[in-house]
Amino acid sequence: MTFASDNWAGAAPEILEALSKANEGAVSAYGTDDHTKRVEARFSEIFERDCAVYFVATGGAANGLALSVLSPPYGMIFCHEESHVQMDECAGPEFLTGGAKLIPVAGAGGKMTADGFVKALKGFPHRPPHGAPPAVLSLTQATECGTLYSADELKALCVAAHEGGMTVHMDGARFANAAAASGASPAELTWKTGVDVLCFGGTKNGCIAAEAVVFFDLAMAKDFEFRRKRAGHLWSKMRFITAQFDAYLTDGLWLKLAAHANAMAKRLSGGLAAIDGVDISYPTEINEVFACFPGDTAEKMRADGEPFYPWITPGDPAGGRMNRLIASFRTTEQDVDEFLARVKQSL
Amino acid sequence: MTFASDNWAGAAPEILEALSKANEGAVSAYGTDDHTKRVEARFSEIFERDCAVYFVATGGAANGLALSVLSPPYGMIFCHEESHVQMDECAGPEFLTGGAKLIPVAGAGGKMTADGFVKALKGFPHRPPHGAPPAVLSLTQATECGTLYSADELKALCVAAHEGGMTVHMDGARFANAAAASGASPAELTWKTGVDVLCFGGTKNGCIAAEAVVFFDLAMAKDFEFRRKRAGHLWSKMRFITAQFDAYLTDGLWLKLAAHANAMAKRLSGGLAAIDGVDISYPTEINEVFACFPGDTAEKMRADGEPFYPWITPGDPAGGRMNRLIASFRTTEQDVDEFLARVKQSL
Amino acid sequence: MTFASDNWAGAAPEILEALSKANEGAVSAYGTDDHTKRVEARFSEIFERDCAVYFVATGGAANGLALSVLSPPYGMIFCHEESHVQMDECAGPEFLTGGAKLIPVAGAGGKMTADGFVKALKGFPHRPPHGAPPAVLSLTQATECGTLYSADELKALCVAAHEGGMTVHMDGARFANAAAASGASPAELTWKTGVDVLCFGGTKNGCIAAEAVVFFDLAMAKDFEFRRKRAGHLWSKMRFITAQFDAYLTDGLWLKLAAHANAMAKRLSGGLAAIDGVDISYPTEINEVFACFPGDTAEKMRADGEPFYPWITPGDPAGGRMNRLIASFRTTEQDVDEFLARVKQSL
Amino acid sequence: MTFASDNWAGAAPEILEALSKANEGAVSAYGTDDHTKRVEARFSEIFERDCAVYFVATGGAANGLALSVLSPPYGMIFCHEESHVQMDECAGPEFLTGGAKLIPVAGAGGKMTADGFVKALKGFPHRPPHGAPPAVLSLTQATECGTLYSADELKALCVAAHEGGMTVHMDGARFANAAAASGASPAELTWKTGVDVLCFGGTKNGCIAAEAVVFFDLAMAKDFEFRRKRAGHLWSKMRFITAQFDAYLTDGLWLKLAAHANAMAKRLSGGLAAIDGVDISYPTEINEVFACFPGDTAEKMRADGEPFYPWITPGDPAGGRMNRLIASFRTTEQDVDEFLARVKQSL
Repeated sequence: MTFASDNWAGAAPEILEALSKANEGAVSAYGTDDHTKRVEARFSEIFERDCAVYFVATGGAANGLALSVLSPPYGMIFCHEESHVQMDECAGPEFLTGGAKLIPVAGAGGKMTADGFVKALKGFPHRPPHGAPPAVLSLTQATECGTLYSADELKALCVAAHEGGMTVHMDGARFANAAAASGASPAELTWKTGVDVLCFGGTKNGCIAAEAVVFFDLAMAKDFEFRRKRAGHLWSKMRFITAQFDAYLTDGLWLKLAAHANAMAKRLSGGLAAIDGVDISYPTEINEVFACFPGDTAEKMRADGEPFYPWITPGDPAGGRMNRLIASFRTTEQDVDEFLARVKQSL
Repeated sequence: MTFASDNWAGAAPEILEALSKANEGAVSAYGTDDHTKRVEARFSEIFERDCAVYFVATGGAANGLALSVLSPPYGMIFCHEESHVQMDECAGPEFLTGGAKLIPVAGAGGKMTADGFVKALKGFPHRPPHGAPPAVLSLTQATECGTLYSADELKALCVAAHEGGMTVHMDGARFANAAAASGASPAELTWKTGVDVLCFGGTKNGCIAAEAVVFFDLAMAKDFEFRRKRAGHLWSKMRFITAQFDAYLTDGLWLKLAAHANAMAKRLSGGLAAIDGVDISYPTEINEVFACFPGDTAEKMRADGEPFYPWITPGDPAGGRMNRLIASFRTTEQDVDEFLARVKQSL
Repeated sequence: MTFASDNWAGAAPEILEALSKANEGAVSAYGTDDHTKRVEARFSEIFERDCAVYFVATGGAANGLALSVLSPPYGMIFCHEESHVQMDECAGPEFLTGGAKLIPVAGAGGKMTADGFVKALKGFPHRPPHGAPPAVLSLTQATECGTLYSADELKALCVAAHEGGMTVHMDGARFANAAAASGASPAELTWKTGVDVLCFGGTKNGCIAAEAVVFFDLAMAKDFEFRRKRAGHLWSKMRFITAQFDAYLTDGLWLKLAAHANAMAKRLSGGLAAIDGVDISYPTEINEVFACFPGDTAEKMRADGEPFYPWITPGDPAGGRMNRLIASFRTTEQDVDEFLARVKQSL
Repeated sequence: MTFASDNWAGAAPEILEALSKANEGAVSAYGTDDHTKRVEARFSEIFERDCAVYFVATGGAANGLALSVLSPPYGMIFCHEESHVQMDECAGPEFLTGGAKLIPVAGAGGKMTADGFVKALKGFPHRPPHGAPPAVLSLTQATECGTLYSADELKALCVAAHEGGMTVHMDGARFANAAAASGASPAELTWKTGVDVLCFGGTKNGCIAAEAVVFFDLAMAKDFEFRRKRAGHLWSKMRFITAQFDAYLTDGLWLKLAAHANAMAKRLSGGLAAIDGVDISYPTEINEVFACFPGDTAEKMRADGEPFYPWITPGDPAGGRMNRLIASFRTTEQDVDEFLARVKQSL
């Protein structure tokens, strides 16, 4: 098993079994079935609050469609300069919102600070209609750098956003890893700190293709269903997303899978840190390790068939030398140890 | 098993098994894996021509994204006034193309004639930049009314489109049913008659969520991959769409499933036609039956828990009395016979 | 002076003088000046109701931006199949609304009937989110065929639209001609019959580039100012649109110019009707005459340097033989009589 | 005359006279007239190269439409973080391009350096289709901070952009001021240094509403005319933009007006610099002065009816204390001296 991406891992067996089970009988299409309604209700339990929940197949769809109901088509969306919405979705949020403007904000380790956000916001004084109005603060939990916002950090950011008349979107592609690592409840990590909409990811953590857009304020969901449909993101055989979430949320599977991946990353990070010349770039708080290897170690390993990615971003603090390693629910201790051995051989 | 929609049927067992099989090992993400490349190549075999193939999860995505590379954002797309792109995608093609204009064309039984299309086209004389330029002719095979275009009919339409400087898109959500019913080869039904791009559907015919956009002219695919990505339609764990098509295209499964559904619809249609007072609205050429029932029979059946849809469209020839019944790969002879019995009881 | 288009006429002298007068002194930009506020208020007087008024330079901008605040980006806009928004704006409404769907409705002489509209609407049963929701009825007064809706006809259409949960947009590029011809008050032709938003044209009737979007329900204007700005339609030196409207609305100039153009068209139409073999296609109710000439008369005249346009549209009742002739505020009786003489010479 | 904005000045008398002169006779619409063709040809003379020229009424339209033909809808457009396209067009470029992503780049005095641009570009490694492809470098000459790029600075930037497979757009809303100040030829400031498209502004420098989009590579203009039309930016009575440019380009009027405005700003800047406690923030190279006043001087002056704007931007080096003062073709020496006197009184 490689450390290239948690997307390279397949699906957890429980997820596949759920698909087979869900296949029985005729079921009404497009999410109007009872099973889907029940799974939607599960989110309200887990988040301790009435939620409006919409299922889609990809994180890009979840983020872009969520943003499209939070921002007018001419609004400004503030996000970290290394965030997925800014760097990895081929201008998807700009497209799906109908033209909103993303404002990248710098911050160490993939995290914005409340001060940093407020300072960025001040650069855009209120001048309607010349300046696009600030509409959304988009946070990523866990971040693209594998770090975590504490509940207090989130709270400060959300307060600042709400004071500026903005709503708060959370990209939770690795929300499970964040929840497992922090021990905080899903509610504490979201609406209790001020998050308005969460894109709750399943795909990277053992699902096939399953993402849920969770609105904590039902009124805010407004016309999501129309926007999902016209963008081609409404599944006819919705039961096959529903079933994934059914299994994922049963008996805490989502947290178990994430906790395992997190532990494997910790093991990897610890092992790497003990190797002379290897630098761990960011604290390893979830299932991602960012590391600089000495000399041409990384290049040699890639040439030898170890497919992990270099990690170059705006504001790159490592001058192009950083690498990203991701553990998944499938990673074993043996995988980690073999990788560590290969690093040592390649020094 | 109901006759509400082929979307209400689940997935064929072969499809689900393929998913489990595909789950083994680490596989590179986003469709860069070898398995995906091999399945893409299968399309070239089946269509007897080098194809550029892209996988997505829904028919709305396939159609809209295909149209977005065929039409400039200010182009005109001619389609049947009852077509899915016009009636059922919540203005998705307008959105995904960035603003193209759909021009609905009338025609009996869901079919445009070449004459009807040419006459419609003549209503839009060449007046750049005032009139939007005609860019695409979008055909549906089989049609929304469950009818088939013959190869000759298609050829005449494609010739007219190409003479007008347009390309031809085919919505093949039920292409399998068309191929199974006509006996014509996939090539004969597409590029040999002049079709430039086919949206080849799997979902309605036993897949979970699997659609392929097939370009017969490789150059025409241009920037499809960017458009798919930014719209949130690129799966990270692409192997799980690939696997569906792998099974679907193996040993002619796609044609077997479609042929069965077609046969069940024929049985249903024949049975209904023999009931006094029932009118079959369109010839039953694939797996769909359109029928008018006498008096309040349809309403009674729906009240008794038979969930089939009334069928009201622009140019509705039945004054709002038509109903749509769809058989699927899962429909049994017993299902058909029980339904016929229920009709008789409800007269 | 030709009959090719009222756009070929320049500007009325009063309009040009107003520009010079408005040029004095420093004036705050982007429409925040007092002069602009005063002219906006004039619209409230003329329409006998508090209005929200926004100025732009072209009819395409006025229509598209008005529709963009009335329709969600996935809404349906019903319009006549020969209307300007459908035929002449290069898919501008689709673009400016972010992807709304225009539904063309047939009707004799450029006019929809309430029955025709209701019938068209019935073809799109309520099926959220599959069908795009009907959002706007767009009417043109006077129509593209130079005909007029009576206040009663408008009322019936507006009632039907409102009953369907839709708002009513009026393209009034030639509203002045309609008002002058009908003798009805501006209020009677608009909000008193149920029109929600009027695009009040000045350009075709003697202005340089001046169109006003007039909202009769202030709340409906919502975010127009943001949409105008981001589309590049907010003038920095707004006083130069304002000044045009100031002159245009003073001493009834707008109605005088239109009445003259109407009268010249009547004279032309009467003269043509008296020529053997010439058919007047539509009643000449404003400043436009639609006529079929015998044999190759039209072609001969065009070859001899008379630049008038053939008029071919969807549902063309004249088989491609119709021509459009437009009088303007500048047309003289002598222009008309010379044209009639040339027709006779070209028979 | 205030120093709030050059947009507050009206039009030069020559421009208004040209309008009256252009008003004679019938002229074909939408820019198809001979006069327009002749004025388009004038641009080719002035720029010493065959150009494709398109006229619009606002700078926002010129920039957004130019960018829409240079960038795919999912492309990245690099621009200065204080540029007009980023700060002042209400997300217009995002809208008019159909969703392109603007990447703000920092740089002192409103200018990017080639090194700064290359460094920013390196933050976005080639990862199709995940990362949006870099498509356009957008430069502003003169800049929003009233500074100038030298021909060498431009050349270095254009080389870097072209090496990265990008094209170069120049926002020339104050290009006349740049040309007048630098003494360089229009060709030297544009295509000879590598600029592909120039938005040549007239409005801020004495026109009413006149901007020209000038493509130096004819092929690059591609579908501009369709994009202009559908966005509502094609004037029917085009002669009234043409006429403005005719006068503007005759006898060097454009350079004379700009040179005067530049000189007045120099006088103002010099006078301010001599006042104790006043800081000039950026070199005064065109008609804009950026200054910090001591204590509450600026607030007092504004309260006393001097309408100049505070200047707060991302990366604001003055902590919110900067003010912008703009001279225009209409500013007199007396205006400058009176303003200086008022500053002294308000200290």
